[in-house]
Amino acid sequence: MSKETNQQWGGRFSEPTDAFVARFTASVDFDRRLYKQDIQGSIAHARMLEKVGVLSDKERDDIIRGLSEIRIEIERGEFEWSVALEDVHMNIEAALTKKIGITGKKLHTGRSRNDQVATDIRLYMRDEIDLILSEISRLQQGLLDLAEQEADTIMPGFTHLQTAQPVTFGHHLLAWFEMLSRDYERFADCRKRVNIMPLGAAALAGTTYPIDRHYTAELLQFDAPAGNSLDAVSDRDFAIEFCAASSVLLMHMTRMSEELVLWTSAQFNFINLPDRFCTGSSIMPQKKNPDVPELVRGKSGRVYGHLMSLLTLMKSQPLAYNKDNQEDKEPLFDAVDTVKGCLRAFGDMVPAIESRKDQMREAARRGFSTATDLADYLVRKGVAFRDAHEIVGLSVAYGIKTGKDLSDMSLEELQQFSDVIGEDVFDVLTLEGSVAARNHIGGTAPDQVLAAVSRGRDLLAARAD
Amino acid sequence: MSKETNQQWGGRFSEPTDAFVARFTASVDFDRRLYKQDIQGSIAHARMLEKVGVLSDKERDDIIRGLSEIRIEIERGEFEWSVALEDVHMNIEAALTKKIGITGKKLHTGRSRNDQVATDIRLYMRDEIDLILSEISRLQQGLLDLAEQEADTIMPGFTHLQTAQPVTFGHHLLAWFEMLSRDYERFADCRKRVNIMPLGAAALAGTTYPIDRHYTAELLQFDAPAGNSLDAVSDRDFAIEFCAASSVLLMHMTRMSEELVLWTSAQFNFINLPDRFCTGSSIMPQKKNPDVPELVRGKSGRVYGHLMSLLTLMKSQPLAYNKDNQEDKEPLFDAVDTVKGCLRAFGDMVPAIESRKDQMREAARRGFSTATDLADYLVRKGVAFRDAHEIVGLSVAYGIKTGKDLSDMSLEELQQFSDVIGEDVFDVLTLEGSVAARNHIGGTAPDQVLAAVSRGRDLLAARAD
Amino acid sequence: MSKETNQQWGGRFSEPTDAFVARFTASVDFDRRLYKQDIQGSIAHARMLEKVGVLSDKERDDIIRGLSEIRIEIERGEFEWSVALEDVHMNIEAALTKKIGITGKKLHTGRSRNDQVATDIRLYMRDEIDLILSEISRLQQGLLDLAEQEADTIMPGFTHLQTAQPVTFGHHLLAWFEMLSRDYERFADCRKRVNIMPLGAAALAGTTYPIDRHYTAELLQFDAPAGNSLDAVSDRDFAIEFCAASSVLLMHMTRMSEELVLWTSAQFNFINLPDRFCTGSSIMPQKKNPDVPELVRGKSGRVYGHLMSLLTLMKSQPLAYNKDNQEDKEPLFDAVDTVKGCLRAFGDMVPAIESRKDQMREAARRGFSTATDLADYLVRKGVAFRDAHEIVGLSVAYGIKTGKDLSDMSLEELQQFSDVIGEDVFDVLTLEGSVAARNHIGGTAPDQVLAAVSRGRDLLAARAD
Amino acid sequence: MSKETNQQWGGRFSEPTDAFVARFTASVDFDRRLYKQDIQGSIAHARMLEKVGVLSDKERDDIIRGLSEIRIEIERGEFEWSVALEDVHMNIEAALTKKIGITGKKLHTGRSRNDQVATDIRLYMRDEIDLILSEISRLQQGLLDLAEQEADTIMPGFTHLQTAQPVTFGHHLLAWFEMLSRDYERFADCRKRVNIMPLGAAALAGTTYPIDRHYTAELLQFDAPAGNSLDAVSDRDFAIEFCAASSVLLMHMTRMSEELVLWTSAQFNFINLPDRFCTGSSIMPQKKNPDVPELVRGKSGRVYGHLMSLLTLMKSQPLAYNKDNQEDKEPLFDAVDTVKGCLRAFGDMVPAIESRKDQMREAARRGFSTATDLADYLVRKGVAFRDAHEIVGLSVAYGIKTGKDLSDMSLEELQQFSDVIGEDVFDVLTLEGSVAARNHIGGTAPDQVLAAVSRGRDLLAARAD
Repeated sequence: MSKETNQQWGGRFSEPTDAFVARFTASVDFDRRLYKQDIQGSIAHARMLEKVGVLSDKERDDIIRGLSEIRIEIERGEFEWSVALEDVHMNIEAALTKKIGITGKKLHTGRSRNDQVATDIRLYMRDEIDLILSEISRLQQGLLDLAEQEADTIMPGFTHLQTAQPVTFGHHLLAWFEMLSRDYERFADCRKRVNIMPLGAAALAGTTYPIDRHYTAELLQFDAPAGNSLDAVSDRDFAIEFCAASSVLLMHMTRMSEELVLWTSAQFNFINLPDRFCTGSSIMPQKKNPDVPELVRGKSGRVYGHLMSLLTLMKSQPLAYNKDNQEDKEPLFDAVDTVKGCLRAFGDMVPAIESRKDQMREAARRGFSTATDLADYLVRKGVAFRDAHEIVGLSVAYGIKTGKDLSDMSLEELQQFSDVIGEDVFDVLTLEGSVAARNHIGGTAPDQVLAAVSRGRDLLAARAD
Repeated sequence: MSKETNQQWGGRFSEPTDAFVARFTASVDFDRRLYKQDIQGSIAHARMLEKVGVLSDKERDDIIRGLSEIRIEIERGEFEWSVALEDVHMNIEAALTKKIGITGKKLHTGRSRNDQVATDIRLYMRDEIDLILSEISRLQQGLLDLAEQEADTIMPGFTHLQTAQPVTFGHHLLAWFEMLSRDYERFADCRKRVNIMPLGAAALAGTTYPIDRHYTAELLQFDAPAGNSLDAVSDRDFAIEFCAASSVLLMHMTRMSEELVLWTSAQFNFINLPDRFCTGSSIMPQKKNPDVPELVRGKSGRVYGHLMSLLTLMKSQPLAYNKDNQEDKEPLFDAVDTVKGCLRAFGDMVPAIESRKDQMREAARRGFSTATDLADYLVRKGVAFRDAHEIVGLSVAYGIKTGKDLSDMSLEELQQFSDVIGEDVFDVLTLEGSVAARNHIGGTAPDQVLAAVSRGRDLLAARAD
Repeated sequence: MSKETNQQWGGRFSEPTDAFVARFTASVDFDRRLYKQDIQGSIAHARMLEKVGVLSDKERDDIIRGLSEIRIEIERGEFEWSVALEDVHMNIEAALTKKIGITGKKLHTGRSRNDQVATDIRLYMRDEIDLILSEISRLQQGLLDLAEQEADTIMPGFTHLQTAQPVTFGHHLLAWFEMLSRDYERFADCRKRVNIMPLGAAALAGTTYPIDRHYTAELLQFDAPAGNSLDAVSDRDFAIEFCAASSVLLMHMTRMSEELVLWTSAQFNFINLPDRFCTGSSIMPQKKNPDVPELVRGKSGRVYGHLMSLLTLMKSQPLAYNKDNQEDKEPLFDAVDTVKGCLRAFGDMVPAIESRKDQMREAARRGFSTATDLADYLVRKGVAFRDAHEIVGLSVAYGIKTGKDLSDMSLEELQQFSDVIGEDVFDVLTLEGSVAARNHIGGTAPDQVLAAVSRGRDLLAARAD
Repeated sequence: MSKETNQQWGGRFSEPTDAFVARFTASVDFDRRLYKQDIQGSIAHARMLEKVGVLSDKERDDIIRGLSEIRIEIERGEFEWSVALEDVHMNIEAALTKKIGITGKKLHTGRSRNDQVATDIRLYMRDEIDLILSEISRLQQGLLDLAEQEADTIMPGFTHLQTAQPVTFGHHLLAWFEMLSRDYERFADCRKRVNIMPLGAAALAGTTYPIDRHYTAELLQFDAPAGNSLDAVSDRDFAIEFCAASSVLLMHMTRMSEELVLWTSAQFNFINLPDRFCTGSSIMPQKKNPDVPELVRGKSGRVYGHLMSLLTLMKSQPLAYNKDNQEDKEPLFDAVDTVKGCLRAFGDMVPAIESRKDQMREAARRGFSTATDLADYLVRKGVAFRDAHEIVGLSVAYGIKTGKDLSDMSLEELQQFSDVIGEDVFDVLTLEGSVAARNHIGGTAPDQVLAAVSRGRDLLAARAD
């Protein structure tokens, strides 16, 4: 390691860092992503130091000017990052000192890299969560629009992937909407715990300078300074919580993806995805593959893995900061990128889903999907539910043997199984009758779908306020 | 499988279930734990069915009476559970029908096992989360009391497990308090999403009966009925979120445990754990092992594993209910038991921690723990921080060579490294001076510890309201 | 804790263990499962102690007799397990001493619970792995028989769940066979590392008694004594490796399960599972749910979770034994039970799969599954592959527009896209021609399926030797 | 997406790929790492195609020459990678066709990207595993050398991090050696299952060209062609198995790291790590942090996460290839890099560990570490082990009260607890006597350490053959 680095902490060291170790332990290749937040935090710190009298007006202004120039250089790709300077913080500080002289060295007064990096990463996560919240809302908006349009499109509802009861496609889409509403809440809850300021904890115990942490927190729009310095530099809960919320979101997206893949198969053939969201095969010319949902489904593994990675990382670490914690960033950054990418891809694709109404309807018509309606009919005629269940079971067994759906059977055939069945049974055996009858909050009736869309629109509007 | 079971759904089946399959797929061995919630949900369902006219007064009353008797039988250990009846729901329903006749069969009107089990498990989780919240508060209470008592006990603060700066033991304990405060919030946030009622979703699409879901929700003290039936029967987010919150809690407890194990080692010797929380060795008569923190540390694996288990379980499941979901219970139940057990053990043990103040102080005195104070002193004398850092580094290197701590050096020795050092330097090199100087919110000064204890007491009081 | 326990290690303790702590730290509720191996290990230890002169003939015989009686009592359910005695080892030793007097206390000479439990669990795992290996072979046998029978049954092969090329059902089943062959190897490799004897490591450092570890290893049929005592008592690699092998196996079973669930859906309808492997619905009388594959699919989560649990458990543990390790057993035992249960269920069910040949064939006929054959045909006529690919792509686009599969088009229609197409093209567009043409090792041709079945039979026969 | 890409599979598509989707689904940014193996596989494929008559001599030679040039361009950094061309395969093939004309298009005859990528990644993993095996051996070599040198250095052995019995430092280091020996075996076992050739499976079903898979396998030094084409393109077991082996290795390294961190703390102070493996603090001038072991400890999370990622990825995927599988590479590549980096860092650092023999010895002397020896002494005098245990327990309790270690007590003091104690007791209470007495295979006696070193050298030598 060069002299340059040694100047940061090398006083007591008798030999330079091993070259491989220097590369192995450096983080600048990935933590440079935090440059904007690092500069933002440093500017606020400088303002506070001036306010409490540690820096002069001029020193503060020099620092702010220098940092602002550095930001521009970084954004223009003109900044030279050095592995020998270990991390984003040292790189920027060294550049600042080169630019404004000895005043640059004063910026680090009353802080440490431990609280600095913890602050940077929280600022970064706050920004990213806000973007994610807005992508979730966009995807939900698309679902509401599509659900409204498909409010009375009939499809088979499945349990155990067996035809269960007819449902509306709009209702199915709104199940996805509900999942995403919980995801939104979880990210919003996580944001509360992200938005706490470690700065001022210094290395681990606070500092002897007369810092004003409330003022810095205000400048950086944090809700509050962290209440305990040891905890502040060692806490990575928010990173884990973010990955946990992301894992549940991605889990939801695997479920949506699985259904999209099924529905685009020749066997289901319920929907069409526009060509622009699909790719082909290098060997099979007829193929049109639902790459986007497949890839999103696969990306769940990545996010689950990052959650496990961070939980493992933090296990059994004594207080306060340990070098292990440097390993928090890559999983977190990749989780952020993955979540944003998947939401963006779905946000674009979902509104473009084209339903094949006839195929859906035909699939619902087959498979005895109105069997429950027949059972309910019997109950209304006074048969106990469990007995009605058995009567319908026998009718279905007869239908399988004879190749007839319930609505294909004659009254006589039906009456073999129960003599309370009358001509009015055929009303309940239609698909439209079946879905319309489930007309209570949360039910699949088209009226309920429209009511739910309306509630959904109110929810999105309230978020925007 | 016996006739008994076939009566639930056997109508269309031509052969009984394979005996091994019946055992392999049955859940009653573990889901019987939900009996109380199953009965509570059924009673509310019966009341609602009566309100909307599906059941008569008498039928409702018979059902309630029958279920209440069954609860008593179960609690007395007099209930005979049958694997042939698959699960807790069927076991209780069969017993009810046996007890009150055909009316028992009517209870299942307008619901399905899919929404029933989802309701039971949410009721159960709500109860358990409340117990966990109260255990967290109890442990936090113990920490506040101990922190107050140890507000000015000096110990070494560590980073990288190297002596860094002196801190107060009370301050260290309050870092644990902060962790637990976030855990409390996360469980409370999870509870919001638990407390939504699936009942009324029936199998997947809602029901044709004129049910009143708002009324049932009110009876069961749910915040609201679930907004979409497909989602309601397939959603297990709350189980994952609970395990995620539990994983972070256990992670925190591994950190506390790690420190307790270190501190009770002969090498640290900072604290004593009373004999009643330790066990001995079958071969080494001198041993006194910190079993409780070790075991809690180990139990983190169990909870992390359950989180991963549930995330895996839900991956790629198409809507709505699939049999896979039966696998949600055992990990969840074990997570609940583990969290409660670990909190209870720590809640009992933490207040009994006895600090070895002299050992802690002696450890803080060694290891150049006031080096940062010397650097800050130099900065206050006008030296730039980075230069001060280097001066102190050289002093420390000298100290290592000569076997002297900073406070052991003479003024002349110190002045070798910087001539701005004066007689007043010895004030900042004391341990008491060092901790007292970190006197801002979140800092380690005894005054700040007492202020934080006071804020903590307010927080606990506010929860109790 | 009672006096009874204190006698094991209580000499230096001044107060009894807290009652909750005693329960919290006791393991007898789950480690009693190891009773057989504990006794087996103790008998070998006693024989060795006699051989080296630490025990007399009579003492050894008394111990063996006493332990044998205890085993019988346990197996008859007559043994009284005590939580106060902590674990299986202490329970058995206490019973032995009660039975044969002071000689019972001598059995623990030259060993510790640390090496004792490590030995017990390896003996247990060795037995269980042998059972698992034999269950894998049984399932593979069933697959070979079914594959032979379905060697020329044509079904669509999928990539991206889109129809890709026709394959034979036998070929598909043999893909499962291959997966299981690797699983078999992994468990066999794991067994090598299980079959190493910790006994003799004592607490951590070995013992001062003149033990003969090679002799004990021989008695217990271990391959060798462990080479380092510190490692021997702390190593749990074999448990992790077992869970890793189990996770891959279960992953394979989720893939098989996913396909079974798809194939039994109304949309695919490729196979029928006999009623005895399915269950019905409490509300939808027509349902026949593929519970076994669904449940097996769900059980993957459990096993993945246990793997993560054990990896977490061992992270950052300093040598040698720590109480954390007690947490190794429950995940491991549950993994063993799960693996055996899933294999048994599949071993019974797979041979009973009934294919719906006409449905499979019809699905293969649709979806342009012979498009690659057309491309290959063009290449044989001299067209470059990438160009042929484009020609076929255009033909498929035409087919989608006109609703015709490739084999439904006239020669003129096909010639629109390339004039090298001649009458002989229709030979390559048949399903039989397509599969028969892939006639090289690993290809889907019926001849290759039969060859692979034959290789498979040889493999199973070689295992049995 | 540009025309350029459409030429690969665009025939049936009516609109270009969405620009974001093209980026989102492209893999070239990470799979270009496979360029060498992709070219190696293509050259073998071309040779085979010539052998079976599909390519002419000249075509084969043109392809080989073109690919060789491309490899050089890539290695010189002159190759222009295009995201529009999706992946490494298409990029190289397009460049080849540009270079040698239409013959380049023929290379893809009889294969598909599905078997191509599966082959590339296995070739890559085989190379990397070989490097890893050699790094493990290097680290083990360092351990043997150090262990030999420290064969009779006495340190306290710990269980529960409490002083248990004296051990030798060499013995402790050999425990690490044993862990690594198992790791070596696991990677070697994994390599067997890596070294199977998918090529020839084509998209999923094999190919209609008369390929000779045995010949290609021989050219590429694969042990055998994969036995089933569907399995060959979908199998990612080897990636999971690699990550599982890596996770256990990293787990071992967390244990070593934990001990190194403990041992370099002021409290233990057992060893010194040279400055070149440590870094300092930006705020605390006296700090010398054991960064390398800390970082390695943290990197365990990353590898555990990748294992979980891949297990999740493969869960529930139906056969054969799905786009999800593209997600296999990044976790795998990062696992490879992490394992190599950690082994390299430890391989450099471990031989440089400097023991502080006096500190270790003093720590062993305290803490009643020879209590077991006293118990064994009593047993040899005819006391039953469990009674001896109690006698020593009472002696230790007395020692704690009086502040005396066992060897500090007078004969009279010791005789208070048992009158069989004689003058010869002081021989067994020395540290040297204690370790020397554990003189059986696997024991801590210096002689056993030297014997184990010798066995270790034989093992390493055998590997090198």
